[in-house]
Amino acid sequence: MDYKRSTLIEKDYTSIFWINNMNYKIKHAKIHALKTYILLGLLVVCCVSGHGQTTLISEMDKLEWEKVLPGVWKATFGEMGLNALDFADPPKTEAIKELGDSPFPFDKDATYSLQTQRRASIRLPLDETENIYGLGLEFDGINRRGNVYTLKVDHYGGTKGYTHAPVPFYISSRGYGVLINSSQRVKIHVGVGNRKDSKTPEPIDRTTGKNWSARPLSDAVEASVQGKGFEIFIFCGDTPLEAVQRYNLYCGGGVLPPKWGLGFWHRMHTKSTADDVLKEIEDFQINNFPLDVIGLEPGWQSFAYPCSYDWDQTRFPDPKRFVETLDEKGIKVNLWENPYVAPTSTMFNDISPYTGSHTVWLGEVPDYTMPEAQKVLLDHHQKSHLDIGISGYKFDEVDGYDFWLWPDHATFPSGNDAVEIRQLYGLIMQDMLVDHLKKQNKRTYNLIRSSYIGASSKSFVIYSDYYNHEGYVTAISNASMSGVLWTPEIRSAFSAEEWIRRFQTVCFSPMMQLNAWSSGTKPWSFPEVTDMVRDNIQLRKRLLPYLYTAFYSYNQKGIPPFRAMVLENGYDSQGTFTGGKLDDSKNPYAEGKMIEVTDQYMMGPYILVAPVFTGQKERKIVLPEGNWFDFHTGEFVGNNETVTIETKLEQIPLLVKDGAIIPMLPSGVNTNVQNNTAIEVRHYGTKENTYLLYNDDGVSYDYEKGEYSLTELKVEKEKSGKLIGSSIPLNNNKFNYGVITWRWMTK
Amino acid sequence: MDYKRSTLIEKDYTSIFWINNMNYKIKHAKIHALKTYILLGLLVVCCVSGHGQTTLISEMDKLEWEKVLPGVWKATFGEMGLNALDFADPPKTEAIKELGDSPFPFDKDATYSLQTQRRASIRLPLDETENIYGLGLEFDGINRRGNVYTLKVDHYGGTKGYTHAPVPFYISSRGYGVLINSSQRVKIHVGVGNRKDSKTPEPIDRTTGKNWSARPLSDAVEASVQGKGFEIFIFCGDTPLEAVQRYNLYCGGGVLPPKWGLGFWHRMHTKSTADDVLKEIEDFQINNFPLDVIGLEPGWQSFAYPCSYDWDQTRFPDPKRFVETLDEKGIKVNLWENPYVAPTSTMFNDISPYTGSHTVWLGEVPDYTMPEAQKVLLDHHQKSHLDIGISGYKFDEVDGYDFWLWPDHATFPSGNDAVEIRQLYGLIMQDMLVDHLKKQNKRTYNLIRSSYIGASSKSFVIYSDYYNHEGYVTAISNASMSGVLWTPEIRSAFSAEEWIRRFQTVCFSPMMQLNAWSSGTKPWSFPEVTDMVRDNIQLRKRLLPYLYTAFYSYNQKGIPPFRAMVLENGYDSQGTFTGGKLDDSKNPYAEGKMIEVTDQYMMGPYILVAPVFTGQKERKIVLPEGNWFDFHTGEFVGNNETVTIETKLEQIPLLVKDGAIIPMLPSGVNTNVQNNTAIEVRHYGTKENTYLLYNDDGVSYDYEKGEYSLTELKVEKEKSGKLIGSSIPLNNNKFNYGVITWRWMTK
Repeated sequence: MDYKRSTLIEKDYTSIFWINNMNYKIKHAKIHALKTYILLGLLVVCCVSGHGQTTLISEMDKLEWEKVLPGVWKATFGEMGLNALDFADPPKTEAIKELGDSPFPFDKDATYSLQTQRRASIRLPLDETENIYGLGLEFDGINRRGNVYTLKVDHYGGTKGYTHAPVPFYISSRGYGVLINSSQRVKIHVGVGNRKDSKTPEPIDRTTGKNWSARPLSDAVEASVQGKGFEIFIFCGDTPLEAVQRYNLYCGGGVLPPKWGLGFWHRMHTKSTADDVLKEIEDFQINNFPLDVIGLEPGWQSFAYPCSYDWDQTRFPDPKRFVETLDEKGIKVNLWENPYVAPTSTMFNDISPYTGSHTVWLGEVPDYTMPEAQKVLLDHHQKSHLDIGISGYKFDEVDGYDFWLWPDHATFPSGNDAVEIRQLYGLIMQDMLVDHLKKQNKRTYNLIRSSYIGASSKSFVIYSDYYNHEGYVTAISNASMSGVLWTPEIRSAFSAEEWIRRFQTVCFSPMMQLNAWSSGTKPWSFPEVTDMVRDNIQLRKRLLPYLYTAFYSYNQKGIPPFRAMVLENGYDSQGTFTGGKLDDSKNPYAEGKMIEVTDQYMMGPYILVAPVFTGQKERKIVLPEGNWFDFHTGEFVGNNETVTIETKLEQIPLLVKDGAIIPMLPSGVNTNVQNNTAIEVRHYGTKENTYLLYNDDGVSYDYEKGEYSLTELKVEKEKSGKLIGSSIPLNNNKFNYGVITWRWMTK
Repeated sequence: MDYKRSTLIEKDYTSIFWINNMNYKIKHAKIHALKTYILLGLLVVCCVSGHGQTTLISEMDKLEWEKVLPGVWKATFGEMGLNALDFADPPKTEAIKELGDSPFPFDKDATYSLQTQRRASIRLPLDETENIYGLGLEFDGINRRGNVYTLKVDHYGGTKGYTHAPVPFYISSRGYGVLINSSQRVKIHVGVGNRKDSKTPEPIDRTTGKNWSARPLSDAVEASVQGKGFEIFIFCGDTPLEAVQRYNLYCGGGVLPPKWGLGFWHRMHTKSTADDVLKEIEDFQINNFPLDVIGLEPGWQSFAYPCSYDWDQTRFPDPKRFVETLDEKGIKVNLWENPYVAPTSTMFNDISPYTGSHTVWLGEVPDYTMPEAQKVLLDHHQKSHLDIGISGYKFDEVDGYDFWLWPDHATFPSGNDAVEIRQLYGLIMQDMLVDHLKKQNKRTYNLIRSSYIGASSKSFVIYSDYYNHEGYVTAISNASMSGVLWTPEIRSAFSAEEWIRRFQTVCFSPMMQLNAWSSGTKPWSFPEVTDMVRDNIQLRKRLLPYLYTAFYSYNQKGIPPFRAMVLENGYDSQGTFTGGKLDDSKNPYAEGKMIEVTDQYMMGPYILVAPVFTGQKERKIVLPEGNWFDFHTGEFVGNNETVTIETKLEQIPLLVKDGAIIPMLPSGVNTNVQNNTAIEVRHYGTKENTYLLYNDDGVSYDYEKGEYSLTELKVEKEKSGKLIGSSIPLNNNKFNYGVITWRWMTK
């Protein structure tokens, strides 16, 4: 049998790409010039004189950490390809400094890197009690410990980690975050997998042992990518939220959407004409539903899948007049498109030199890592869409599947790797558009189906064809730990109950959208619940001052406006493993399941949202420490406990923190005209509190130059114990709200 | 925005691993010595003077084909790592030559290779009408066209192509096979994905076009692997079966199992003791069930998951006596194990120097690409198991999941790539054991949970925890086109009906096994159907002369004994696409489904098996050209048509080809004593025919030295039209059966 091995090993020796431990010492060297190549040739030959070996931890390279900002550390390992952070906004360094310093969260000497033949990997320590969150837009579960994720931009539903926004950033319950900055598909082992020389539990005989586990506890996170290296960032913090804040701030802070973006979005059926849209708008008025954005689906284009990006002259004979008409009614227009250019497009000839080897749906694939390609698209879109008042886009199909996107072996004119281009496609399109409109001092709010590292400041919300309501709610939490926004958009429903339940969720999400592109549904499609739907939309719209301020806090401090409960102080995630029951055909490893709460989340500083799913007559809500009150009645509900509430069809359960100060518009106010509007300010519970209410013009970037108003809303107790409220304008008054009516919700 | 691109591209230029089209010319060079490394350094520097580019087909390298045997062509591209064929048996060149020559199946000038930064890829032509089969042990569908497979050894159920035996070998309905020989995970695009300069259909506007497809027709198969190259083999043929035969023969031909391997296998509950086994054997006798092999599950070992491989002295105090006792009863013993070595194993210290960096279930992972590691295992197993009469093993857990196997970045003492070691682990274990026992002139028959290229000659049958009955049946067909055997073993059932239906399937499969490791079920666990179960087992056992001869044909001619209908002449697979119905949440691309027949297959030359699933009162059967007859009654059923039959609980539908000659044992004959046994030879239909009946000692490799009997069974028509049968011994008579009773089934 000897011949087999010797043949094989010889092959390895003769491969120039064979890398031995012994040459790790050269891996940090930057290779720039001819002489270095020759030197490398020499080194490789010298080094591979021995044989392969099993690398022990003690033989791995230690990562070298450099502090880049207070509480932010970086280690670089090898060479990387496309860098996602090149497409993120620059760090908000002042805001990071304001968070103060924070110690490095674990032993630096216990962090390692390793280059194997085809992969670069790292090893970071993990203690027994840590929970790990994040890793992008997942629809299933919140605690990521005990699994392996292959973080690949794709539709959801394949291998774990294949998703629209597979962000290689994780957060520990101990209060730090780790970003593995690579544009390759990061494969990450979160507390599973043990090295033979690592600290591990004793093995257990499965036949007789009671606590045998198919995934024995591991003391590390190990991650790897194909190729030759990456950057690792540690975002420190006293809490998981602080780690998230630092990550978001490092990526430029969170997005502050235009106010209209937080209104009601309705997407038309794909075959709709300009007249159909005008009729639909009338119907909205007749049915007394607000409407802030109309989305046009593929049929606005003369050709789609692949796309022409040119107006269909039959359905939209006068696009300019059409958009103006809607603008006069205070309605923005958003255009669907995908990146694949049809031969019939007026921009086809200009962009074709900058497209990749493979087509998608027979359309060419622009290489938007090239400024030349970006320029063709932006010039075309400026002239055909933006100049006539289009507010933004829905960039579809930037994610997967493999069976219609370009293959991993495709080539692109920039020379960038096809895998990396796919991983960053959505991010680059976000960056391209936002950057372009920012030069015109215009804020925008858009949809996209893929995102990645560094997206928190982008004016884009992710959506999916995945349509599980429970998963949609879980995704709101997970998005908040990955620097992305997510909309659980409603499309259709099997019953009036499902319709209102889904509507309630989407009303309390980053984008309130009905996507009727195929179903042609309207908000009033289920008459039994039409009033309830209207009330929920209305409530969301009334909360605009509160929500807009929460987004400002995302922008300035990196605090996600919608966020996972595990980012909340005093919250017990109640994550436990059930013991798995052995079933020879269904669960042959008797694997347990993580039982955790995934169906509630926070909106802004004070409101806990607990969506109800079809069929639920009651539901449990886990309340963090402190007193919590019913949003509608102000009544006390509980403190640091799990309560069970009976559901009401008309209401989504909203719980409010003690001391909450919640500014609300009156009913029926248009999102565009809020300055000087009289507002109601609610207070819940019995605590004194101070709240900073934010406002600005709602549409431009002038707020970055100080053009905004901040009002301090203060609730104090008189000696009698009676609460009184006051408001103090803090800077300029230009965008102040009008008369304030205080409402004391808790009697 | 310019800075982004220039930064990125610069990085590519400075990477030593950046490969430009211009240096393809060096890719075939073998790199052996110092000077070559320097030369390469120079070449790389010279070549990357331009920029990246989109490679057009005309710019790709043409593959260079070399004829290695009649009808077998090979092209080599770049360098590869582990070579699976090094672990296969040598080609049966004489048998391949006997098949004759066959023309290269498509235009050689339309075959291309391309090296991109991190991947090696090929492109082969595909015509509009071709169906593509194979690609390993899949449970879903038979025609692979229109999908992308990432061929990775893993449990089934993740991304398409993750399976126990993801063999990168495909067969065209036009009658050729393509083997992409790589031990990396081959990613293969089967008629999906178009290049911008390839022959493609015209794009269709989805909004208005009727025939828009999410997967437009493509004129190629493209495949790629991470790294720097692979070999491609074309196995020509006049029919798909001939291509399969050439592939199997190139891998050493098919396995000829020992006769006992084709008997009834029963696996004990994991906690069983030696006494429990003896009691179980008694119960088999009492219940009048045959028993040929007893499988012992983890509990025979002193420690399992990870494994000690040492007998548990409490449950098996005298293994030698135990195995002898069973041997006296004509029962073989098969031992379960997985490859991960427990620290308590008596072989731990010896093998530990040859294990990888990571543990599995805290057991060390031997690097069996090293002969040193193989020697430790074989020495131990010879002494502890084989010397006392153990017949073989069930090698479990050689497949996945990622969350318990070693990571892709693990290191191994041989220096071989962790991904390749995983891909080949099962294959190498098969090779190691069969090779070892062959030196002792002992045939064996075993179970394994992963396999790969080159496994047809190995005495192993694959099984899975996946337990869908329909999928299990589909897998029988797919296995036959990938050089592997598959058992749809029965474990447990929800009802007596399911029990008998699953039992019927497993009785007509390569291994008839009840795996009660966890359920503790017995063949008589559902008393209502016990007689039916017994009758089905009996029927399978009676068919041994027929089945054993079919395996001989696998061995000598590469014809799979159980095989897909698409390998049958005159069979219409009836594969059609349904038009997909658009559903905005469930099927937003309105994707159609491939409707094809997956629930019937061939056993030996004449018998079509059509398993019935729980709840089916009737089922359709697609009959190829020619007259087909009912196995039990001999009555005519149909010809080249789809018939619907009413099912009977006690019978699995078996259809027999016109002219079939089927030799059968009498009831109750032990698998070990068949020489000189009187046999019944059935004839079906009206055709004259000749059949070669094979027999040998059933246990050794002496047949390779001519120690076997071949008997010509001939059916001829007298002038009166009456059929008469005759038998002529063709070589030595040592293993002839006894008196032949002809039975004319069709009146």
